[in-house]
Amino acid sequence: MTATTERMPRNGVDVPGLFGTINAVGSQPELAEFRFRATNRWVAGTHSRTTIEKFTGAGGDHVHAQTFAYDADHPEVLVGKDHGPTPVEFLLHALGACLMAGVANISAARGVTLTSVQTTIEGDINLLGILGLSEEVRNGYQQIRVTFRIEGDAPPETLRDIVEQSRTRSAVYDVLTNGVDVAIEVA
Amino acid sequence: MTATTERMPRNGVDVPGLFGTINAVGSQPELAEFRFRATNRWVAGTHSRTTIEKFTGAGGDHVHAQTFAYDADHPEVLVGKDHGPTPVEFLLHALGACLMAGVANISAARGVTLTSVQTTIEGDINLLGILGLSEEVRNGYQQIRVTFRIEGDAPPETLRDIVEQSRTRSAVYDVLTNGVDVAIEVA
Repeated sequence: MTATTERMPRNGVDVPGLFGTINAVGSQPELAEFRFRATNRWVAGTHSRTTIEKFTGAGGDHVHAQTFAYDADHPEVLVGKDHGPTPVEFLLHALGACLMAGVANISAARGVTLTSVQTTIEGDINLLGILGLSEEVRNGYQQIRVTFRIEGDAPPETLRDIVEQSRTRSAVYDVLTNGVDVAIEVA
Repeated sequence: MTATTERMPRNGVDVPGLFGTINAVGSQPELAEFRFRATNRWVAGTHSRTTIEKFTGAGGDHVHAQTFAYDADHPEVLVGKDHGPTPVEFLLHALGACLMAGVANISAARGVTLTSVQTTIEGDINLLGILGLSEEVRNGYQQIRVTFRIEGDAPPETLRDIVEQSRTRSAVYDVLTNGVDVAIEVA
């Protein structure tokens, strides 16, 4: 048995289940097609609320364990009421959480036990773009930086390799760095 | 006075404050530089928790009205415990909330009173990428679709123009469609 074929549960990851899923999808590739959904409702001003409840994938429809709801808003310095983080802060959360899930799964699959992992994610944005004050400044982040602090029963180089493999397989990292087609329609 | 110079509070938007902010930043462009932050901590398996508390901008440091905290996880069908939405679902939330905040601000600035706005956001993803089962399939979403249902005291064409202007000035739309540099470091 090598580190990459470890099959014990570890780090709270059901490693046998993970490999079972990969094998099942490998033999039935149509199970890999997923569709995720969210509904956002305007509340007042820049305050809105999103609910996340259902998704489709693995050949069927699924309902989350609960209906998740999230408020977003602008802070007062940006003329909002601060009922929630800004949408761009949720992007940082999505990126950090995606890389973290990958680190946990990959560590477990490689037989590495983690003791502590934390990331800080920060993004620089110049509001001259979204305020319409400059045509040269983009609307979105100019750069995002993620810093990992990771501890486990493996040498630093192995832990770095795990982070690198997570980056290589991260859905959110892919979308943020390579972009994606977004179609907007008014019904 | 034209519709585009409307200065009354509307839709819960402090329109005078909004134009005051735009004018202030126009005369002091360094106020436009913002840095947003999030901290993500691993909990167990694919479950992690992000806190969002502080940001920098408008020439100073700011603390949100409260420390916001969000769980993310994978659902059981993806070998998680469903303690929160997946990171890619938070991307849909960020996009919907960003477009919605823009719609509210732009409507108010144009003198349009909104009565109801809702979006559904959905994204298609093929997991053959992140599961490492295909080198041809990307890790992230293949397409994202946003559908607006918007009602207010303006003709449908005006409401469509407001949605289009929001798209044109959306930070999250920009990042998702054009991509952004993401630097990952292990401390």
